[in-house]
Amino acid sequence: MFNQEMQKLGEARSIIREIFEYGNRRKAEIGEENVFDFSIGNPSAPPPAAITEELLRLLTTMPPEKLHGYSSAAGLWEVREAVAAYIREKFGVPMRGELVYMTYGAAAALSATFSALIAKEGEEIIVPAPFFPEYTVFVRQAGGVLVPVMTDAAFHLDIGAIAAAITPKTRAVLLNSPNNPTGAVYAEQELRSLAEMLQKCNMGRENPIFLICDEPYRSLCYGEEPVYPMAVYPHTVVCDSFSKSLSLAGERIGYIAVSPQCEGAEAFFSAVMGAGRALGYVCAPTLFQRAVAGCLGQVSDLAAYRENRDLLYEALCGMGYECVKPEGAFYLFVKSLEPDAAAFCARAREHELLLVPSDSFGIGGYVRISYCVKRETIRGSLPAFAALAKSYTK
Amino acid sequence: MFNQEMQKLGEARSIIREIFEYGNRRKAEIGEENVFDFSIGNPSAPPPAAITEELLRLLTTMPPEKLHGYSSAAGLWEVREAVAAYIREKFGVPMRGELVYMTYGAAAALSATFSALIAKEGEEIIVPAPFFPEYTVFVRQAGGVLVPVMTDAAFHLDIGAIAAAITPKTRAVLLNSPNNPTGAVYAEQELRSLAEMLQKCNMGRENPIFLICDEPYRSLCYGEEPVYPMAVYPHTVVCDSFSKSLSLAGERIGYIAVSPQCEGAEAFFSAVMGAGRALGYVCAPTLFQRAVAGCLGQVSDLAAYRENRDLLYEALCGMGYECVKPEGAFYLFVKSLEPDAAAFCARAREHELLLVPSDSFGIGGYVRISYCVKRETIRGSLPAFAALAKSYTK
Repeated sequence: MFNQEMQKLGEARSIIREIFEYGNRRKAEIGEENVFDFSIGNPSAPPPAAITEELLRLLTTMPPEKLHGYSSAAGLWEVREAVAAYIREKFGVPMRGELVYMTYGAAAALSATFSALIAKEGEEIIVPAPFFPEYTVFVRQAGGVLVPVMTDAAFHLDIGAIAAAITPKTRAVLLNSPNNPTGAVYAEQELRSLAEMLQKCNMGRENPIFLICDEPYRSLCYGEEPVYPMAVYPHTVVCDSFSKSLSLAGERIGYIAVSPQCEGAEAFFSAVMGAGRALGYVCAPTLFQRAVAGCLGQVSDLAAYRENRDLLYEALCGMGYECVKPEGAFYLFVKSLEPDAAAFCARAREHELLLVPSDSFGIGGYVRISYCVKRETIRGSLPAFAALAKSYTK
Repeated sequence: MFNQEMQKLGEARSIIREIFEYGNRRKAEIGEENVFDFSIGNPSAPPPAAITEELLRLLTTMPPEKLHGYSSAAGLWEVREAVAAYIREKFGVPMRGELVYMTYGAAAALSATFSALIAKEGEEIIVPAPFFPEYTVFVRQAGGVLVPVMTDAAFHLDIGAIAAAITPKTRAVLLNSPNNPTGAVYAEQELRSLAEMLQKCNMGRENPIFLICDEPYRSLCYGEEPVYPMAVYPHTVVCDSFSKSLSLAGERIGYIAVSPQCEGAEAFFSAVMGAGRALGYVCAPTLFQRAVAGCLGQVSDLAAYRENRDLLYEALCGMGYECVKPEGAFYLFVKSLEPDAAAFCARAREHELLLVPSDSFGIGGYVRISYCVKRETIRGSLPAFAALAKSYTK
């Protein structure tokens, strides 16, 4: 009777969201402090004080009907230009406000990008696996097919494998660095090798392969900040969000930045505008457009996430868990203690540990731990992790 | 190279948005007070003071990482329940929080509703014409076809014409009352006749015809508030937004309310959830979810819009323009002084009057005037309207 694909999507729900909902119910039952909810990437670090100050300033100084009125579909011009100037100054690429499209966080940025790029049913988007599960949904909605390509043992790019996956239907490679769920941050050399390989491919193709970079975690790097992809490859689209960097995940504010060196940049931007219209976006929330424009380059408390990472990583390694130390973001990707990650998560749940099994990330046998939680949640969880490990050695 | 449908949509842009953009450029050239911009429905009345107070209260009392964090995909439970309680109390229908889906304004509400309802390519949504042009885009994106059916001379429903347009592919009738662009408000008897006709049709059908009600202007009625459609027809979905009632058009906050009497209400709600996921919605902006929940039932200054309506309506009638007096919303739909409305708008532009030609609303020969503007814009525009009329009598 209704759209079956949508109904199934709604009934299945995102596995992450499902565990998140379970966690909320469970916390209500046994108390928040007794549930160790590592399910969702809901930032625990408060936004920088400047965000609240900027919101209060806007609310108390601007006429409210002007503050809350429609903006142009692509965003307020001064905000687009501020984002472009930030990208120009920070990364030394010639970004222009005309190629910045403000939207509802990275999810909407990616959805509009795929809808704009995918011209025919069945065109392909290559993604290194493991990958954020909703990519499958966004690409499918745009008529495309997501093609996962396994990364190497440290979850870094396998350029040969990506090259081997390219077909005449390939429209883009989708990168997410720092990576959700692994915490991997791709090195400059890795990106340069990828760019070189893609440029070679492009010579024999009618249309170049695009590089779509999902970058909400860029500012959450524990080492050096990675190279800006537009600096190494021309046909690049950056999808960014302030969800994680400014702890505004629920406010849905982010942007698409199309490299001016992209082949057909203006035509692509028009297609993004059309996609935004078709997807019902209208304009990004105007109060938060203005607020983030006043706080570009600021970051929530990264040190807190680093301490969480170190505490959890050291403790789990000490208990015999296997994992690669995350270089960025706030996820730890840990090998399951049995082949079936879902069964492992079910057993973890008996210890009130809420972990996400890796299967929907395109790989079996792992769990994702979102460590953007309070320090006491991590401390409190350690005996449960120890008991869980011990339950496998009996 | 890119998606042609999206590129065309982006290049064509909405005619309303195009005039709005022209107006912004023109104001920068000759001064805001010299351009009479009646193009867009951007509310001029400030939001009720309670909205700003509630925003300030939330920002100064809630921990910001909690305030701005993700909500569940369908919205914060307390907000969904508050909206349901408001509907129960105000309209006497048994709404439940479980059937309320918070989203990015009415555009996203409609997009998700169409995506959930339209099961097969080519299914039909009937809409009384004239109608809001973006309906065509939203229905098309969901794989459907919008079927316009002309209203009567006063822009009220022609039930016989709607009945004649029903085919086996019809999935819903889409109503917008108070209407954009005509200002018509459908009377209780009209809705009851429509409901009766649809119920008769349903007896011979496998699936009932849905009634989708786009209601952002409900609280902007100059007479009695119209009957709530769920009270007269079971298979009803209300798409509402706070854009106009609380002057929050740019903040993108609204909801879908599915009647519990709807056939398959829960399955339909799941399909809405799936559609929201596919369209990249994630969750409605959380600060504004909370703020509107604290201000349900409040309305921006309706008296100001009424005075604008009366001033403009009387003046234009006095100059010989033909129009039906609006019963709600803030649009005046005026007969063009020549058959080609676009040519008429071009001539109006020479007088710095920015009007929207009616063609994209599904009817030729009219213009839409958005009178949600400052009083002085209306007063200032009257000599220009007079000169425009005079230019046709030479």
